[in-house]
Amino acid sequence: MAPRIKTRERIVQNSLELFNQQGERSVSTNHIAAHMEISPGNLYYHFANKQEIIAELFSQYEEQVESFLHPPKGRLATVEDKRFYLQAILAAMWNYRFLHRDLEHLLDSDKALADRYRRFSQRCLLQGQAIYEGFVSAGILEMTPVQIEALTLNTWIILTSWVRFLCTTRENSAHLSEEAIKRGVYQVLVLELGYVTATAKPAVDALCEEFHVPLQHALEQ
Amino acid sequence: MAPRIKTRERIVQNSLELFNQQGERSVSTNHIAAHMEISPGNLYYHFANKQEIIAELFSQYEEQVESFLHPPKGRLATVEDKRFYLQAILAAMWNYRFLHRDLEHLLDSDKALADRYRRFSQRCLLQGQAIYEGFVSAGILEMTPVQIEALTLNTWIILTSWVRFLCTTRENSAHLSEEAIKRGVYQVLVLELGYVTATAKPAVDALCEEFHVPLQHALEQ
Repeated sequence: MAPRIKTRERIVQNSLELFNQQGERSVSTNHIAAHMEISPGNLYYHFANKQEIIAELFSQYEEQVESFLHPPKGRLATVEDKRFYLQAILAAMWNYRFLHRDLEHLLDSDKALADRYRRFSQRCLLQGQAIYEGFVSAGILEMTPVQIEALTLNTWIILTSWVRFLCTTRENSAHLSEEAIKRGVYQVLVLELGYVTATAKPAVDALCEEFHVPLQHALEQ
Repeated sequence: MAPRIKTRERIVQNSLELFNQQGERSVSTNHIAAHMEISPGNLYYHFANKQEIIAELFSQYEEQVESFLHPPKGRLATVEDKRFYLQAILAAMWNYRFLHRDLEHLLDSDKALADRYRRFSQRCLLQGQAIYEGFVSAGILEMTPVQIEALTLNTWIILTSWVRFLCTTRENSAHLSEEAIKRGVYQVLVLELGYVTATAKPAVDALCEEFHVPLQHALEQ
């Protein structure tokens, strides 16, 4: 059994690379098989179609996001946690950028995936609120529950729309750089600047500098 | 010539209604002709294909947005102007909601439209910045140029992604209410709350109340 499991994993890994580089729509199962130098039959032994590969990649993506998207347990949040969340979000967006580029198309063509995405989206919004509440409890942000709800929603929309924004705004939408995606994470940090307490301000300002990518740079690279 | 011009206008108007109600992808030129009780040949006399109708609707949309998206001339901006912008944005989003629902699909299938959209997007970002700068000059907001750039970008992304967010998050994505779209405009107002001056705060808080739609309400209707 061992080699078979390995091929399955390799198919998933190679598909992710090709989807990220070329966009999911331009990559067929035949492309994937040719790229891996295996027969289409061998690929179909593991996955009935491209949707099954995408579903597997979405599971990995969900797992990666849910592994970090929760408040720290048993202690107050710190600005260092904020850096950790931003870096983890950047990594997840970069690793699975094909999902963010073509999401409506993927959901339109797979009802089950659309249902899973809806539940994932709801869990992320709840976890995001809990994280922001944690920063309020820790005296890093000063916000009401209504403001937290609106901020979390804006965070979610910016993060899930950023790659698409880049693709519809840039002349050359094929290639995406990690720097361009980092600017999206900066845009999320900016959302909360009006609510940072005086004590936390120097540390959050330093974070802003760390994540700042000039807009022109993000739009050109 | 008069009746012909009238048919042309009726085709555009009927297409807009059907696209908004059913989504552009579900509506063919045959549907439009049948709905208007004219022959497909009559429709093709005016428009070679659906793309031409969409291009015409996009022109109308651009015209509507550009008619209001600029700072007031010869005087300082007021909070009353802010209400005017928010209402005008809500109207444009509601009238052309089909564009916001399926934008990538529309741009993918029409290179010329994608180029026009890119230029439109750049003009809107510049005008948005000029409007926010006007609110700073008028003592309503207190922000640096770097903050204005980031805020304008977040505004653009929230406004252009809101309808899609609703469609991917709600169980029943077919029907969109004006209330649900209004919540998107509220989300934009929230973006600037951290930068409102003490003098302007009561008036901006009143605006927030006016545009607030409970999230649950937006997600269910």
